[in-house]
Amino acid sequence: MNPHPQAAPSEAPAAPDALGTCAARARSAELERLITEDPGRFRILTGDRPTGRLHLGHYFGTLHNRVRLQNLGVELFVIIADYQVLTDRDVADDLRSHVDELILDHLAIGVDPERSTIFTHSAVPALNQLMLPFLSLVSVAELNRNPTVKDEIAHSRQSAVSGLMFTYPVHQAADILFCKANLVPVGQDQLPHLEVTRAIARRFNDRYGRGTSVFPRPEALLSEVPLLLGTDGTKMSKSRGNSVVLAADADETARLLKGAKTDSERHITYDPATRPEVSSLLLLAALCQGRTPEEVAAGIGAAGSAALKKTVTEAVNEYLAPIRARRAEYARDRGELRRILRAGNERANAVADATLAEVRAAMSGDY
Amino acid sequence: MNPHPQAAPSEAPAAPDALGTCAARARSAELERLITEDPGRFRILTGDRPTGRLHLGHYFGTLHNRVRLQNLGVELFVIIADYQVLTDRDVADDLRSHVDELILDHLAIGVDPERSTIFTHSAVPALNQLMLPFLSLVSVAELNRNPTVKDEIAHSRQSAVSGLMFTYPVHQAADILFCKANLVPVGQDQLPHLEVTRAIARRFNDRYGRGTSVFPRPEALLSEVPLLLGTDGTKMSKSRGNSVVLAADADETARLLKGAKTDSERHITYDPATRPEVSSLLLLAALCQGRTPEEVAAGIGAAGSAALKKTVTEAVNEYLAPIRARRAEYARDRGELRRILRAGNERANAVADATLAEVRAAMSGDY
Repeated sequence: MNPHPQAAPSEAPAAPDALGTCAARARSAELERLITEDPGRFRILTGDRPTGRLHLGHYFGTLHNRVRLQNLGVELFVIIADYQVLTDRDVADDLRSHVDELILDHLAIGVDPERSTIFTHSAVPALNQLMLPFLSLVSVAELNRNPTVKDEIAHSRQSAVSGLMFTYPVHQAADILFCKANLVPVGQDQLPHLEVTRAIARRFNDRYGRGTSVFPRPEALLSEVPLLLGTDGTKMSKSRGNSVVLAADADETARLLKGAKTDSERHITYDPATRPEVSSLLLLAALCQGRTPEEVAAGIGAAGSAALKKTVTEAVNEYLAPIRARRAEYARDRGELRRILRAGNERANAVADATLAEVRAAMSGDY
Repeated sequence: MNPHPQAAPSEAPAAPDALGTCAARARSAELERLITEDPGRFRILTGDRPTGRLHLGHYFGTLHNRVRLQNLGVELFVIIADYQVLTDRDVADDLRSHVDELILDHLAIGVDPERSTIFTHSAVPALNQLMLPFLSLVSVAELNRNPTVKDEIAHSRQSAVSGLMFTYPVHQAADILFCKANLVPVGQDQLPHLEVTRAIARRFNDRYGRGTSVFPRPEALLSEVPLLLGTDGTKMSKSRGNSVVLAADADETARLLKGAKTDSERHITYDPATRPEVSSLLLLAALCQGRTPEEVAAGIGAAGSAALKKTVTEAVNEYLAPIRARRAEYARDRGELRRILRAGNERANAVADATLAEVRAAMSGDY
């Protein structure tokens, strides 16, 4: 799950516990093997906040991986975390269009609404109700020291922390556990975010399970996030206008990449440490062409920045062409978009109602 | 609303703001006049935690007033706050029977399930979902200094404050606002408890109302709570076994009152300051007989404590006889009890669904 699409993909990871990361990496490799063997064992919860059109940082950071897992046969639940943008007035004032853009991006990249469930958090009351029993299983002290909450506070543009932000890890637990997801794709810096969910699942089972597991303890599926920079050399960000959004057309893309920051060295080489901007462009072309950045660099040789930009532009536009075509097609039929969201919400509600019924029975609340 | 049935009725009020209390008292008198004129304008939310059988302290403190208001024609929603006892293991392990006892007590005293809605908090997902938008409208700092939360912490038997307890005022707001209650009966010490709900209603309207009021700002209906003590002279409490429960039979009642603490002065007088135990017994008899405690005292004269206890026992047993008969009748037919709760929950769900739909539309979340 990536609740911060604007920030996470291109952000340098917070100093993680090296041993923990190493173990998570090993376990993720094992999980990838198990997925290939028997994808039907796994259900994934992933999603985003509806804060704007997604860009290539999101795509190569997380979106691409979602489609890959779906296509391996894993069941995918994609949550649109619309209750997590309430305090962002720019978004909240135009919520519906932000939600639509997010759905369009997912459909465009190949999330298949027949196989995967796209839904909005606010449309699933039984999911939200899980908040209450879950809140009883965590202490205020735990919430205070939770890295997710600290992140929330750091990412928010407001000084006062709202009750919604403070309880964020508990919503996240409800989002993940309502559908009994047992796998959550994360970047390395997001590893600690799953801990509250895992603690809640364990405590609920211990307290109410009578020897059985009502909830799985979801595992992190760590994925490599390529370090793509924005065209100005800083991290990709919607507000900086430094990133190619999936929805842009070929001309916009060309204009944006033409203005990309490079350096004056004519010979193009892949060297992320000393030539970050040039290397990021090479990496982008490489990802689009299924090559290594070194191969792309070799192809350009001493032809300089202009040739690099031309190469990247062509690679990106070619790669995105079918995605953009599919996006435009879906965008033309808003009725179909509504129908897809309605079907996803119905599915999510059916799953949430079943889980809540189980929770009630476990808690002796099925009067 | 009285979320602490065990504590509030006989508890000395916390030092309130005298001016505020005076204003609330004046406004409550005005509200009583308006209720008599046009009861259809008002909807009341009240309720209790399912922590055990209700006793005479609850009855004369709050329950009697609920029935009075219902019978005046005000619409009554009675919430059984079952999510507020999750952290109380004694209760949680036998939740269903605690819920049943609470419903039986309400039916026994005359709450009419055809006119009033009795429902359990946990059965109404759309009510619980309101928590999330409401949480976005309060800050952690506000929750930290809220008297309701401080009360919660004082009343709980645990050292660590749970997330559920910390966010309690926000659940309370959801409980009151889901049915757009505009009136909440409170004791004097509970006046501050309504402030978070009022703030949330105002902020929601300001932020999302576009000039209209989605939610009323509910008002406190202050009622006089007679100061009844337990039979041991301390405050009434289930765990102390010092209070006559509505469900007790006449013999149990006689035994309990026979053991009541009095004093050695044979001449019985009503003097709460210097003879608290005797005065509390006089007050109880007076409440049951619709007389003043002075009248009851005069009737006993110099006959001493034994006569006082006999008078009180007869008064209580006579008063409770029809209530106990009705309770026993309902208790015989658990199927009917289930049907009543199911109908109440259905009604509450219909109201909550309608409110949530309005909230979604106001927040542009009706995709």
